[in-house]
Amino acid sequence: MADERPDWQKIGEEFIQLYYSRFDTGNRSSLGELYYQSAWMTWEGEMFHGKEVIVNKLTTLPFKTIQHNITKQDCQPTPDNCIVVMVMGQLKADNDPVMGFQQVFQLRNELGSWGCSNDMFRLSIHNFGA
Amino acid sequence: MADERPDWQKIGEEFIQLYYSRFDTGNRSSLGELYYQSAWMTWEGEMFHGKEVIVNKLTTLPFKTIQHNITKQDCQPTPDNCIVVMVMGQLKADNDPVMGFQQVFQLRNELGSWGCSNDMFRLSIHNFGA
Repeated sequence: MADERPDWQKIGEEFIQLYYSRFDTGNRSSLGELYYQSAWMTWEGEMFHGKEVIVNKLTTLPFKTIQHNITKQDCQPTPDNCIVVMVMGQLKADNDPVMGFQQVFQLRNELGSWGCSNDMFRLSIHNFGA
Repeated sequence: MADERPDWQKIGEEFIQLYYSRFDTGNRSSLGELYYQSAWMTWEGEMFHGKEVIVNKLTTLPFKTIQHNITKQDCQPTPDNCIVVMVMGQLKADNDPVMGFQQVFQLRNELGSWGCSNDMFRLSIHNFGA
């Protein structure tokens, strides 16, 4: 049976797989290849603008090992032919306790290839009920 | 002192305030005014396309009262002059326990006014550590 997922769904899911695979194999500097030069990242409320600034933040995060587990990922096409991806999951950094996180990416196509123009990351440590 | 937040930050925050205010005052059908005709919504993984379909889903959600409390909201401008907003918070529906949620909106300007083209909602019930 043919794969009936729309292209934006496939592209979103493949990006997510590639992104966290690079993140978790310790090759964080290679994440830069996934961001556009003028990309934005908001990491725990702090904003970073531009690929070099983003890569510098990602490569200097204060842990050695990390593992992301994705619980849910939702993709949508935008009116500008971009793709928005929302991720929910858990991560374990070094020997810290497992923590929930949420992350959003906007992907766009330029000259035939897809890259990330927008990235927002938050730990979910305040995100559950009383 | 002048307000130094960039416009996209203000627009994002005002949208969030308006959106959840309408949601929580029980006037859910009025949420339709905030979506574009061709908007997408993903609600707990189920996709809805088009304003009428979205409003129908929102107005038939199986609770009478709801209260959202926003913990964090992040805004970013996109290369297409849109705004992406990521929300983290808790909600309480009727007498159910408080639950965490995450939601993402993409806002765009058409003919001078802002509306929502993309919306993704997930309860955070699976989004915390072991």
